[in-house]
Amino acid sequence: MQKLLSLLFTLLALSAAAQRELSVSDIRIGVLPAGKLNAITDVAGVRVGHTTLISGSDVRTGVTAILPHGSNLFKEKVPAAIFTGNGFGKLAGSTQVAELGNLESPVILTNTLAVGTAIQAVTRYTLALPGNEEVRSVNAVVGETNDGYLNNIRRQVVDTSHVLAAIRNASDGVVAEGNVGAGTGTMCFGFKGGIGTSSRKLPASLGGYTVGVLVQTNFGGVLQIAGAPVGRELNTFEFSDQLMNNADGSCMIIVATDAPLDSRNLERLAKRAFLGLGKTGGIASNGSGDYVIAFSTANSLRIPHQPATALLNTHALSNDFVSPVFMAAIEATEEAIIRSLFAARDMEGFRGRQGRSLPAGRVRTILKNYNLLKK
Amino acid sequence: MQKLLSLLFTLLALSAAAQRELSVSDIRIGVLPAGKLNAITDVAGVRVGHTTLISGSDVRTGVTAILPHGSNLFKEKVPAAIFTGNGFGKLAGSTQVAELGNLESPVILTNTLAVGTAIQAVTRYTLALPGNEEVRSVNAVVGETNDGYLNNIRRQVVDTSHVLAAIRNASDGVVAEGNVGAGTGTMCFGFKGGIGTSSRKLPASLGGYTVGVLVQTNFGGVLQIAGAPVGRELNTFEFSDQLMNNADGSCMIIVATDAPLDSRNLERLAKRAFLGLGKTGGIASNGSGDYVIAFSTANSLRIPHQPATALLNTHALSNDFVSPVFMAAIEATEEAIIRSLFAARDMEGFRGRQGRSLPAGRVRTILKNYNLLKK
Amino acid sequence: MQKLLSLLFTLLALSAAAQRELSVSDIRIGVLPAGKLNAITDVAGVRVGHTTLISGSDVRTGVTAILPHGSNLFKEKVPAAIFTGNGFGKLAGSTQVAELGNLESPVILTNTLAVGTAIQAVTRYTLALPGNEEVRSVNAVVGETNDGYLNNIRRQVVDTSHVLAAIRNASDGVVAEGNVGAGTGTMCFGFKGGIGTSSRKLPASLGGYTVGVLVQTNFGGVLQIAGAPVGRELNTFEFSDQLMNNADGSCMIIVATDAPLDSRNLERLAKRAFLGLGKTGGIASNGSGDYVIAFSTANSLRIPHQPATALLNTHALSNDFVSPVFMAAIEATEEAIIRSLFAARDMEGFRGRQGRSLPAGRVRTILKNYNLLKK
Amino acid sequence: MQKLLSLLFTLLALSAAAQRELSVSDIRIGVLPAGKLNAITDVAGVRVGHTTLISGSDVRTGVTAILPHGSNLFKEKVPAAIFTGNGFGKLAGSTQVAELGNLESPVILTNTLAVGTAIQAVTRYTLALPGNEEVRSVNAVVGETNDGYLNNIRRQVVDTSHVLAAIRNASDGVVAEGNVGAGTGTMCFGFKGGIGTSSRKLPASLGGYTVGVLVQTNFGGVLQIAGAPVGRELNTFEFSDQLMNNADGSCMIIVATDAPLDSRNLERLAKRAFLGLGKTGGIASNGSGDYVIAFSTANSLRIPHQPATALLNTHALSNDFVSPVFMAAIEATEEAIIRSLFAARDMEGFRGRQGRSLPAGRVRTILKNYNLLKK
Repeated sequence: MQKLLSLLFTLLALSAAAQRELSVSDIRIGVLPAGKLNAITDVAGVRVGHTTLISGSDVRTGVTAILPHGSNLFKEKVPAAIFTGNGFGKLAGSTQVAELGNLESPVILTNTLAVGTAIQAVTRYTLALPGNEEVRSVNAVVGETNDGYLNNIRRQVVDTSHVLAAIRNASDGVVAEGNVGAGTGTMCFGFKGGIGTSSRKLPASLGGYTVGVLVQTNFGGVLQIAGAPVGRELNTFEFSDQLMNNADGSCMIIVATDAPLDSRNLERLAKRAFLGLGKTGGIASNGSGDYVIAFSTANSLRIPHQPATALLNTHALSNDFVSPVFMAAIEATEEAIIRSLFAARDMEGFRGRQGRSLPAGRVRTILKNYNLLKK
Repeated sequence: MQKLLSLLFTLLALSAAAQRELSVSDIRIGVLPAGKLNAITDVAGVRVGHTTLISGSDVRTGVTAILPHGSNLFKEKVPAAIFTGNGFGKLAGSTQVAELGNLESPVILTNTLAVGTAIQAVTRYTLALPGNEEVRSVNAVVGETNDGYLNNIRRQVVDTSHVLAAIRNASDGVVAEGNVGAGTGTMCFGFKGGIGTSSRKLPASLGGYTVGVLVQTNFGGVLQIAGAPVGRELNTFEFSDQLMNNADGSCMIIVATDAPLDSRNLERLAKRAFLGLGKTGGIASNGSGDYVIAFSTANSLRIPHQPATALLNTHALSNDFVSPVFMAAIEATEEAIIRSLFAARDMEGFRGRQGRSLPAGRVRTILKNYNLLKK
Repeated sequence: MQKLLSLLFTLLALSAAAQRELSVSDIRIGVLPAGKLNAITDVAGVRVGHTTLISGSDVRTGVTAILPHGSNLFKEKVPAAIFTGNGFGKLAGSTQVAELGNLESPVILTNTLAVGTAIQAVTRYTLALPGNEEVRSVNAVVGETNDGYLNNIRRQVVDTSHVLAAIRNASDGVVAEGNVGAGTGTMCFGFKGGIGTSSRKLPASLGGYTVGVLVQTNFGGVLQIAGAPVGRELNTFEFSDQLMNNADGSCMIIVATDAPLDSRNLERLAKRAFLGLGKTGGIASNGSGDYVIAFSTANSLRIPHQPATALLNTHALSNDFVSPVFMAAIEATEEAIIRSLFAARDMEGFRGRQGRSLPAGRVRTILKNYNLLKK
Repeated sequence: MQKLLSLLFTLLALSAAAQRELSVSDIRIGVLPAGKLNAITDVAGVRVGHTTLISGSDVRTGVTAILPHGSNLFKEKVPAAIFTGNGFGKLAGSTQVAELGNLESPVILTNTLAVGTAIQAVTRYTLALPGNEEVRSVNAVVGETNDGYLNNIRRQVVDTSHVLAAIRNASDGVVAEGNVGAGTGTMCFGFKGGIGTSSRKLPASLGGYTVGVLVQTNFGGVLQIAGAPVGRELNTFEFSDQLMNNADGSCMIIVATDAPLDSRNLERLAKRAFLGLGKTGGIASNGSGDYVIAFSTANSLRIPHQPATALLNTHALSNDFVSPVFMAAIEATEEAIIRSLFAARDMEGFRGRQGRSLPAGRVRTILKNYNLLKK
């Protein structure tokens, strides 16, 4: 009898936990279907790797690497573009991407004070690749957000080996989210943020392309989840009294697609991801470094390092057919940001500061109240 | 008895109509309070004028003029900036605004094929102002959207007198919305769009500034109202089967503020309005001309046409204090767009095409279903 | 005997005139050879037309039209880009060119207050072309400089018929230079400016491409001709005491090439023309509207208005092969500007103002003194 | 007798050397007078420091630091802007400068593969400054050119101590030029390049301001010295047969001024320096990283890190008065580049490659032939 009661209590507790648990599968964002994994790795060839650095009471940081394909990127560059939503950030590599329209190295995300280290690591990595023995110039693209609330950022613990590990660990398949890699110590809308990812797959009638997004969330605003005014209900929005900390941070957004977009249309695509950030309630505050890095993995657009001929023969999507890809990027960005919040867990960090994850129970209640939970 | 019954039926009908009627006061967008009129004219000095052209079965167009202040604008320019969300549009005057950081003429909105006419009108207007007898150069800022679905745009009925009338009629106070001025014939999210306006007033602790927005809505996407997935529920979103017409249009957004923002910070402010567009479900499709024109009315930043001295003494908001103004622009833009839809009415136009306004009853039901109607 | 003497005097006079006469063929600019005509029309298919308006004592203005090819431009757009050297100007159409990367109408040059008229004319022209019966949107690209020193610009005499005439008169072959078309009333470096054109043809080893440039010169600085410090020697430079008028004007530069450059590389090409302006001593002063419009006529890059398929197959020059084209644009721009000065003639205009052409004798002497006259 | 003969020979040798020796004081560039030192340090407060790394047969590189003023730059930021002439480069820090309009750290120049190291060094330097104990975010502005022709760049010998030494050694006064600091191993127009500097001082009537420029020259084109077609005469221009190496390099240009220019006008100023590069014959080839970083040292425009009040009271130059400052930047840039060539000396480097300095005798002859040597 006691056993039975105990079991009953356990079941009730589990059920309550389940009820409190937030799962992004309980909500619906947008109108387009996600890819198989609902991750940036749904774009064939894309790989993601994390190095997570948690130690002692004050190290809460890391590195995330995104690789457009598995070959030598320097030898086979991909078309790329960068959009600056708000430029209070240390993004490296942007002018060359804009000038040449391509990306020749893994994209690295890390913390604000580790950008120099990450550039060095990418440089070393690239110089050391077989076939790159004569390479004398590498454009490392490195983004960051400031995890200095939970992480003792001034200690600068990230070293080149951590960056190289993230690159080497990169794999396709499921992408770890939340308090991992470059998202280990980040805060978002006053709650624990982190890494999030999502994807959208267009129907064949709209090209059948996949758009995958990965975000490192560390910014503020008035949180909105699938439309629900969560930040308002919780009274935790920017400039409200109860905001746990002024989340004047940043958001790095990586957009990958197999749609054959040239660099001009990738720049447009990148701009749409900013709309997705807006839909979560982000305001791109003064202190935010909000950047979108977009690239295409389409084979027809690869750029050889030393082209054999002067003329490149490419097949790129005409302007008239890009809008569905834009729409996919907006939805995937919105969902990737929400997923970063749902995946993040409570974390205590530097100076005993608390990074609380979204209050699952209250958020569930709000979503339910707004009829935004799937049955 | 029959009379009583008739009266009863009438009352019931009216009540049902009232129930169906959509009022923006029934929903809540954002967290900041609106200004007194909830209009761009809440920014002191700003004036708006419309010329509405409806005639026969095919003329459905017009002109809207926005004046930053009531004095000679050419002599007392205001700091300004323009952000291009998507540049498939004929916006005139942008490069000079970017270079010099100021606006020297009324902002005109009209239809795509009337931009040349509007430039001429602004030029004439400016040359004719007392004190401008020696003026030989005028930078007209003219935006447009394409109302060619309901309007026989190729007839090009707008002439300079219509533009001049909009300027001369401009007044402060309540701003007419919906099917008026440059919004007369526009379509938005597959429904009748038009002119909308809204404002936000910051609390004194955040500067006490007002941000006012006016929009000309003619674009598409996946309509979201105060968070509710209306476009999805109605199945009228971009690329869905039931979309009445491919609303591959545009959105002009004018942002006025009395916050003393210099042109650099106004450019940042303009970019935030794009986030507001995103929150309504706008996707900035390929064919969209989405532009934001932002200006500050602050006296401390007026730019004399011929400055008496080489040095301008200005008082401008420091970067560190602009975020609340950004947030206000996002909210006011989102609400202005929704208001344009709520204010628009059914319109039949060119070639018998129907511009249906939002289906009030169904939208009310959706909003209610999502618990997004104020009690 | 008298006859003989008379003949002798005539010969002497002619010889003196010849000595005074300035011919661009007497100097050498750059290291690359010019095309056959040393004109923008050396790029096959490009056409230029002028409407020159000179009447009474105060009308000194006009229109110049540049057509990338002879077919319906709206139906067969060309890749294009615009660079803003200094944006104090009324250039129309720039944001759409930047967004979509193409040009769909003739490029029109005229005076500052005629931009609206020119837009209307281009719109009418495009709407009326066979096959364009359903066109409802036209992006007119119109540039201008301010000829208000010699021209009574406030009279606004340019009307749409003048613009249409320039388009219709456009032809290949020799391009009239100096006081014609949009250059009729312009001033440059304190002297009479106008229309100038030049071209460069790359050797086959560098691709064999042709770059042609046409300029409308109306700007100031410190004139340098083929390296010779002419402005300094004449003491007629900007801010010097003897400058005839403060030539705080503008320079419109059109760069055409048959090199298959996509819009990104055309933007880079456009930027190089600015270097050519610099080599003539231009300083892009505050009041200058210095814009470069570049397009490629390569067949492999034509953009159909309604593409039959989603994917465009293009052959474009790889980044690694564009530098010679850049160099050609710099040289052709420098020479086109100098040619505009050499071709311009004295003109009296508005309020009796004098536009003096370069003092041929003194300039010859200076060039000779600097050993920069070809033998 | 022998002594006399010896003396005679010595005198003859000296005289021959003198004849061969190139001195920038023998030529005249522009029309404006130089400042006292003809260096960037003529702008009061500006400091320059070099670390020169020459060792063995393959290390030929270094670091140059430019400090806008002697106080804590992070606490007292200066208005700044960056212009990208051609973005094939690894410039760090540009997006934040563009967004916030200011510079908060020393500007570092080094080689292409040392940018990451330099960022780390600037970060460390800034974190360690008294008063910066709570700083968690530093925007390092680091430029580079590729000295891999003479320097074994893949060895990556630059470490943070070298960067810190350049910052700490920075001083006002005379600036070392040629093969020093970041210019140690650079090549320009096929000859040995390096660091160059120059300045212009406006007359009081034009504001009396000083503009100082420092360049790191490593680029190619068709060399022109004070107008003389030196590259053409020597047949060593880009794409010519006799060019020693394809100098597809870069040019970093730092422009300092005491003119009170806000960030918008500094961006315009930066763009003018690109014209100065053009006047030397630079073509901004595909592989070039040509960037201009401009800042103002004016006290009235200092930006406190944590402003005491929301409103900044500033005195900035009105648009209408900036043109003379533009002209000064063009001239100082042209001269700084030429000075870098004149100051550079022959250098043997990596793999026995030869960096020959300008052939003084032949260049003198050319300049003399073109009558461009001062008497």
